[in-house]
Amino acid sequence: MKKDDVIIITPTVPIGTSTKIIKLIENKTKLTVEKDFYFIYNPERISAGQAVSDIENNYPPVLSGSGKTSIMIASKMFGIISSKKPIIMSCTEAAEAEKLIEGLYRDVNIALANELSIFCEKLGIDFWEVRGAANSQPYSHLHKPGIGVGGYCIPVYPWLLTQTAIDKGIKVNFPLLGRYTNEKMPKYSIDRIMSKIGNKKKLTALILGLSFRGNVADNRISPTYDVVKELIKNRIKVKVHDPFFSYDPLLPKEVKLSNELDKVISGTDIIIISTDHDEYKEIDEEYIIKKSKKKPIIFDGRNILNKDNFKKLKILTIGK
Amino acid sequence: MKKDDVIIITPTVPIGTSTKIIKLIENKTKLTVEKDFYFIYNPERISAGQAVSDIENNYPPVLSGSGKTSIMIASKMFGIISSKKPIIMSCTEAAEAEKLIEGLYRDVNIALANELSIFCEKLGIDFWEVRGAANSQPYSHLHKPGIGVGGYCIPVYPWLLTQTAIDKGIKVNFPLLGRYTNEKMPKYSIDRIMSKIGNKKKLTALILGLSFRGNVADNRISPTYDVVKELIKNRIKVKVHDPFFSYDPLLPKEVKLSNELDKVISGTDIIIISTDHDEYKEIDEEYIIKKSKKKPIIFDGRNILNKDNFKKLKILTIGK
Repeated sequence: MKKDDVIIITPTVPIGTSTKIIKLIENKTKLTVEKDFYFIYNPERISAGQAVSDIENNYPPVLSGSGKTSIMIASKMFGIISSKKPIIMSCTEAAEAEKLIEGLYRDVNIALANELSIFCEKLGIDFWEVRGAANSQPYSHLHKPGIGVGGYCIPVYPWLLTQTAIDKGIKVNFPLLGRYTNEKMPKYSIDRIMSKIGNKKKLTALILGLSFRGNVADNRISPTYDVVKELIKNRIKVKVHDPFFSYDPLLPKEVKLSNELDKVISGTDIIIISTDHDEYKEIDEEYIIKKSKKKPIIFDGRNILNKDNFKKLKILTIGK
Repeated sequence: MKKDDVIIITPTVPIGTSTKIIKLIENKTKLTVEKDFYFIYNPERISAGQAVSDIENNYPPVLSGSGKTSIMIASKMFGIISSKKPIIMSCTEAAEAEKLIEGLYRDVNIALANELSIFCEKLGIDFWEVRGAANSQPYSHLHKPGIGVGGYCIPVYPWLLTQTAIDKGIKVNFPLLGRYTNEKMPKYSIDRIMSKIGNKKKLTALILGLSFRGNVADNRISPTYDVVKELIKNRIKVKVHDPFFSYDPLLPKEVKLSNELDKVISGTDIIIISTDHDEYKEIDEEYIIKKSKKKPIIFDGRNILNKDNFKKLKILTIGK
């Protein structure tokens, strides 16, 4: 760290972090912000798998800084990098809150979709049909329910925001209700499968997908880990397939992980779709029956299978 | 009710209502549905003030019926009325759920916005700035916070859905958390004003707006009634202005209601914007000071005032 350096931080952080970092640097270096060094907080707005196009073209950059000079530097720099006009925030705290709240909106709305999908399931109503009709109105943006919410972003931000609220004595309810609802989904899904199967012994389940999101090799905080745990609790032998992974030290030792579906599907009684990888969308029952040499029950935890391809096998779908 | 009649119901109803109505008619008349009479459930998708264009052009009609013939009749009829292709639901229950859930999404998201706007207020962050930046990303649809949620739709649907859930033994949390959060907003707003004013005596407040939504003459379940109650609790004399109302038996007798702003504003210490009528957006402090002959504190409960027009008067804005 030397005079005239520009510091840019881009991760999602608790509100107030930028101010703390600036003070820390000033105390340690005796340099003064906006005079001797410059500070920019630019919360990244990227999705795994499309980071470069997200930064360059998809979303306007959100910029904040320690003062006018830092903002000017940030604007010039992002004018070169991004094709979208940047949004200049009035302070680093507002930019920090923006990123957390963007993610919180999604976690809460996924949780609302999950709660309503269970509500509909129990009434014999197809949530996906309801969702499609509701979202034909421009004021409705119902999210997709699913077997779980993963990644280093959406499941984490509600905790960061709640911690700030607790520290400051502010009461918030939605972040924790969202987390409570979404974290129950793996258990709810496995309980639903078990209630259909009954008390059979020596069953083997194959989970399709270790990544937390489709078509990326990213297993951070994947809900698949919780699905594995719930199956093991029910004394079911577990195998996991993912085209992007053949080794994962985070899985329990007894769980076989493979990137070759043809091989790992053999002898499977339960198939659970945990990740919406494109290659799973094309699976049909002929393939499953032929390769598994069984008639497994299927739980489509992402609602990606074409149900017309299934006549003989029982499919449970989240929200139906 | 006679043979070959077609019954259409369009209000928002608890799930299962259509089936109950059909059974009731069959029992009372000895007619058989789909043979002797036809039943259509078409949940209305209209906003007060723009109902005809909503039906004819803005949203696809959602249609359901007691069977194929009823659906056919509905499709032909709505093919004449609406320019949008109708959405045919698989059963009346799905159509009933669709309408409730569309409204629930909005109530929950307004509640999330209200909770986050209070969170931001207490941290000294402008929620509206945060919201604008977050919503520049296509996955974010943060709603607007406000002094309260009114009308016969949005505040009511969560209760209808919750009643069905209770009847069927299904646990839901979001509808009541949404209601709890939104129903607190009038009290929260008045408490905030009172904490700024302190313990002054003999104050007069003017509430701008009795309608639950801007630019319509519709006071059903308006949050203004709760705002009035909270002010009276604080021993404040209350007046209400609305361009659409000069008489309302639902207001307490001691509350003066007028549709003439110039007159009713005189002698006011507190001005509270409760409805986003367009005519309120243009108000500036010169007008207020001149007509009130005071320097009232202003609470902009809809964030519609142009803050550049206020230099001398204190403005509190929801979410700031």
